[in-house]
Amino acid sequence: MQLEHIGIASADIEADLERYRLLFGIAPYKVEEVPSEGVRTYFLDAGGTKIELLEATSAESAIARHIEKRGPGLHHLAFAVENADGMMERVRQQGLRPLSDAPKAGADGKLIFFVHPKDAGGVLTEFCAPGKPPEAE
Amino acid sequence: MQLEHIGIASADIEADLERYRLLFGIAPYKVEEVPSEGVRTYFLDAGGTKIELLEATSAESAIARHIEKRGPGLHHLAFAVENADGMMERVRQQGLRPLSDAPKAGADGKLIFFVHPKDAGGVLTEFCAPGKPPEAE
Repeated sequence: MQLEHIGIASADIEADLERYRLLFGIAPYKVEEVPSEGVRTYFLDAGGTKIELLEATSAESAIARHIEKRGPGLHHLAFAVENADGMMERVRQQGLRPLSDAPKAGADGKLIFFVHPKDAGGVLTEFCAPGKPPEAE
Repeated sequence: MQLEHIGIASADIEADLERYRLLFGIAPYKVEEVPSEGVRTYFLDAGGTKIELLEATSAESAIARHIEKRGPGLHHLAFAVENADGMMERVRQQGLRPLSDAPKAGADGKLIFFVHPKDAGGVLTEFCAPGKPPEAE
């Protein structure tokens, strides 16, 4: 299974972007708002591995709560699957707890769900599948 | 700059390996002891991205202390550089604090050093360069 991206909670996006630029020579190739999650997402390419810097846009977002509780830093790993519903079924069959009842729309046009970190070695684990293409009008 | 690997602190390596096998279809391709760090390292390939599961072999290891303080889970990101000494110099010029005075031998034959997470957006950041080949006797 392929790692799709690494999610990092940022408490100071300007400083983080500046450090990636100066030390790593990397700038975001895309910035996307995900209002349903209360985050702004900055996509960086670290030599083929996608890093998502996550900035909270709402005090109620999971990212804001994570930073309050554990500080900024590594937040989740996302793995690419073909079929989000099928993967959720496999996850449940293994006795692991998804954090939502069904896959939902995430950044980058994906269909996503998370598994509880307590069921995944302490790693908040996301599975993401290609979303449906927009319907023709 | 290329991500070299993701380090994950494991508190139950058997359960973690079993979950990677069942859910992700991934098994370690290498296991390595790093006595100087008090860890056993399990290398997994997640579709081109290397994941290192880190098991403490000593109660004084950084991994054991991390698990005690923050629980198991995401531990560090490592980035590949050509020259560890040169990168340490650049890191210092940016006012960031390396966690050692000089690069040292790490897993996988690399020459490594870490940067303090407080100086890197909360992410414990490793830089790793190819180590010197063993000297001929």
